[in-house]
Amino acid sequence: MNIQESWHREAWRRAADRDPLVRFVDVNLRGASQVFLQNNPLTGLIILVAVCWGAISGRIPHVAIGAVVGLVVGTVTAMLLKVPRTPLRDGLYGFNPLLTGLAVALFLRPSPLMWLYLVIGAAATTVVTLAIGDVLKTWDVPPLTFPFVLTTWFLLLGAYQFARIRSGNLGPPSLPHPVDPRAAQVHVTGAFLTPSMLRDVSEVFLLANWVTGALILIALAVNSLWAAGFAVGGAVVSTLVALWFGASGKAISTGLYGFSAVLTAVALGCVFYRPSWRVVPYALLGVVFTVIVQAALNTALAPVGVAALTAPFVFATWLFLLPKRGLTPTRHRELPEHDVVGSGAGKAR
Amino acid sequence: MNIQESWHREAWRRAADRDPLVRFVDVNLRGASQVFLQNNPLTGLIILVAVCWGAISGRIPHVAIGAVVGLVVGTVTAMLLKVPRTPLRDGLYGFNPLLTGLAVALFLRPSPLMWLYLVIGAAATTVVTLAIGDVLKTWDVPPLTFPFVLTTWFLLLGAYQFARIRSGNLGPPSLPHPVDPRAAQVHVTGAFLTPSMLRDVSEVFLLANWVTGALILIALAVNSLWAAGFAVGGAVVSTLVALWFGASGKAISTGLYGFSAVLTAVALGCVFYRPSWRVVPYALLGVVFTVIVQAALNTALAPVGVAALTAPFVFATWLFLLPKRGLTPTRHRELPEHDVVGSGAGKAR
Amino acid sequence: MNIQESWHREAWRRAADRDPLVRFVDVNLRGASQVFLQNNPLTGLIILVAVCWGAISGRIPHVAIGAVVGLVVGTVTAMLLKVPRTPLRDGLYGFNPLLTGLAVALFLRPSPLMWLYLVIGAAATTVVTLAIGDVLKTWDVPPLTFPFVLTTWFLLLGAYQFARIRSGNLGPPSLPHPVDPRAAQVHVTGAFLTPSMLRDVSEVFLLANWVTGALILIALAVNSLWAAGFAVGGAVVSTLVALWFGASGKAISTGLYGFSAVLTAVALGCVFYRPSWRVVPYALLGVVFTVIVQAALNTALAPVGVAALTAPFVFATWLFLLPKRGLTPTRHRELPEHDVVGSGAGKAR
Repeated sequence: MNIQESWHREAWRRAADRDPLVRFVDVNLRGASQVFLQNNPLTGLIILVAVCWGAISGRIPHVAIGAVVGLVVGTVTAMLLKVPRTPLRDGLYGFNPLLTGLAVALFLRPSPLMWLYLVIGAAATTVVTLAIGDVLKTWDVPPLTFPFVLTTWFLLLGAYQFARIRSGNLGPPSLPHPVDPRAAQVHVTGAFLTPSMLRDVSEVFLLANWVTGALILIALAVNSLWAAGFAVGGAVVSTLVALWFGASGKAISTGLYGFSAVLTAVALGCVFYRPSWRVVPYALLGVVFTVIVQAALNTALAPVGVAALTAPFVFATWLFLLPKRGLTPTRHRELPEHDVVGSGAGKAR
Repeated sequence: MNIQESWHREAWRRAADRDPLVRFVDVNLRGASQVFLQNNPLTGLIILVAVCWGAISGRIPHVAIGAVVGLVVGTVTAMLLKVPRTPLRDGLYGFNPLLTGLAVALFLRPSPLMWLYLVIGAAATTVVTLAIGDVLKTWDVPPLTFPFVLTTWFLLLGAYQFARIRSGNLGPPSLPHPVDPRAAQVHVTGAFLTPSMLRDVSEVFLLANWVTGALILIALAVNSLWAAGFAVGGAVVSTLVALWFGASGKAISTGLYGFSAVLTAVALGCVFYRPSWRVVPYALLGVVFTVIVQAALNTALAPVGVAALTAPFVFATWLFLLPKRGLTPTRHRELPEHDVVGSGAGKAR
Repeated sequence: MNIQESWHREAWRRAADRDPLVRFVDVNLRGASQVFLQNNPLTGLIILVAVCWGAISGRIPHVAIGAVVGLVVGTVTAMLLKVPRTPLRDGLYGFNPLLTGLAVALFLRPSPLMWLYLVIGAAATTVVTLAIGDVLKTWDVPPLTFPFVLTTWFLLLGAYQFARIRSGNLGPPSLPHPVDPRAAQVHVTGAFLTPSMLRDVSEVFLLANWVTGALILIALAVNSLWAAGFAVGGAVVSTLVALWFGASGKAISTGLYGFSAVLTAVALGCVFYRPSWRVVPYALLGVVFTVIVQAALNTALAPVGVAALTAPFVFATWLFLLPKRGLTPTRHRELPEHDVVGSGAGKAR
């Protein structure tokens, strides 16, 4: 990171300290970056641009609006509840409501009542974030995106029972059945692989758009080359594993087998553990396990007609983080100051 | 509370201290009142009368007997296991087995084997109460009615596999589907709303009977006007929200969208937090969230053919109670002695 | 236990201390014995012989190989992760991967990719064992076989989505329905009961083979007559209860209602509590509850097409162990040295 960048950062930080409005914008931008476990307003800004691009080019601009509304409502709710100041400033109360807003707008049909449902859901997500955070403090693991997953499952499952909040892209509920072997026949070329892997990144925001994925990788690289690298690694490994195991080619191409794996790779590879030759095979096993959990939740949730969201990332990352306390050699919580991974991203999570 | 009432209470307490039989009756009556998070034998007595009325006028008197058998078996099991004395005396080991007994008698077809199943279930509910209480102690939140919910789910799901314990009102299991918009068309009048809201209260005991609901409100008012008020508030809000969202009119009229919300309103509004202008909007969000969780569990449990029971209340209340430790302004655990909410109801929960 | 046996044990222990290869064999044999909560290499050896017998006589020899591969991969993974030495030596990182390997080989169709899937699954099971162990340390209860259950559920549910990892014996997913009363009509004779009860024991390893069951009882008796006795007790009680309630005769005869109950009986009766006249009725209630949980999970898992595995044992035993901390009279954790139950089996679990 060169001196000029640091200078810009410093100026922004001082402006945020002085002006409440700049501070509010800063908190929300950091919130957007925390979806990828980063803590950097510029990363957040590029991510929001990427989401807008994906939503607009997919002709679903209201999904980007839903994301921003969720982000702002969630952050404001946290302020009203007088949450502790440091995690608030780091954007840790923004990223879950952002995803809730995005998912509600994507899966349900737009209507005035849908927007009310979205606002209630975003506010509830902040409460759930506090609750899950309190529970997980016991084991020193972060809530990750579980508050979003849990709240959104409630909102989407609930929508089936409400005639005035209609499903757009949900379900239909069905009994699971083995995947058709023909669906798994894929002609694997670079033209298949590259956009698939970029969509692995964009699907973290439930969008299948390779440009969005590429922009997000740039956003990550701005804050941490390691994070961008592990994101690419997660996309490559998960795509190859899903192809090898014979998952549906269409699902692979849409990025559905990779988005949780991308997050797992970033989380295990360079956020909660320090990158090392010991950590890489461990993170690799974690990424492969994430692909299996993704497939498992696709099966398990079929009868109730909702998507797995980022639950595979959450479950796999929790299971691979919890052993850390007992395992001396991989206990690398504190990132050294000279490390390329910046500013203790996600430390408070 | 006037002096005379206090005098009656005092006399009863002294009789309970002296006579083991009176004490046993007292413990069981308090157990009945603890379903609504109260600790008052008179409240419990009126609640039992209300349940008997509902069961008899619905021509299912054995359901009231099931409730009483569950209550007594659960309390006796707790005594045999030598549980701590104070929570036992407060009725905290009675209310979950009471509900288990009531639900088994309601959902399964009466037969000698059903009664054995009910007794086993009530005894197991006490063990599960101890287990869940031990787990939740870590975060200082109470088990609420979760021991009843968990044990009864096991008992009802299990009944499908036992030819000699037949289902009465279960299922049938089916894939969920969006509610029919015509089912949500309701002609909203006072004649629809008032009994619906009273049934919201009675459905806490799985009975759709407005007289039972009215009697329970009286039972609450005897111990705490706040509790009765928040119960009414929970019923009003949940009914209006369910109507607005377009839930099935028949389900609303039976009280199915309100009974968990009523409990959430009492729990958040005046038992675990102290009533205040800060708590009211928080409890309001909790009540609306309970309605959404209720709808979500209706969808999620459809394929396995069991009801949500009071799980929506439990999940919503846990999620809205857990943040309390981190939130100074809403940390009102101790009820002041002069407060209208009596005798620290539910304190040990 | 006579002097000669002790002498043999002593010699083996010294050889294990000296020779890393003997130690590795010892750790794996203890791992096999820990499935039944024992810590004895001879018990483990006889159990492995019993599993081989069952697999070979059922013409599925690869299932026994899967078990051994899982055991070895799991143990080696634990070594690579530098887990604490004492529980490793006691075989506590071996029994869950053993069961994962066995289940993957049994439920999925053999192929090179299946073996890779099995190895990934066994390694992941060790990570999950560490994670679950860390979580449960909070309440001083052991993971039991839950790491196997959780990981295997992920692996089997996931297999539905992978065209190149085909199901052998899974599902098909279906909505649950009440058991047919004719299926519950059983002509109960000694010729029905005895092999059924022995298969209750063998089904712990997912094998329906009465000789395997008899060999396992011998294996238990070698280490602890109490364990063998409670295993028999669990089989008898669960079979009679399942017959009485009217469970499917075929399922009872295959041992499907008894294998979790056998483990619950051993765990509650003589491993975590000390055998006594107070503990016996408590363990009895636990065994009956296990049968109900087994039936409940059969219903609940039908729509997603996977088996309950040993989850009924895990859930029932956890619920019946957790109250111990609050209950003075049944708090018999430390086994006295003169007790027939040997060497504090399962103490570290």
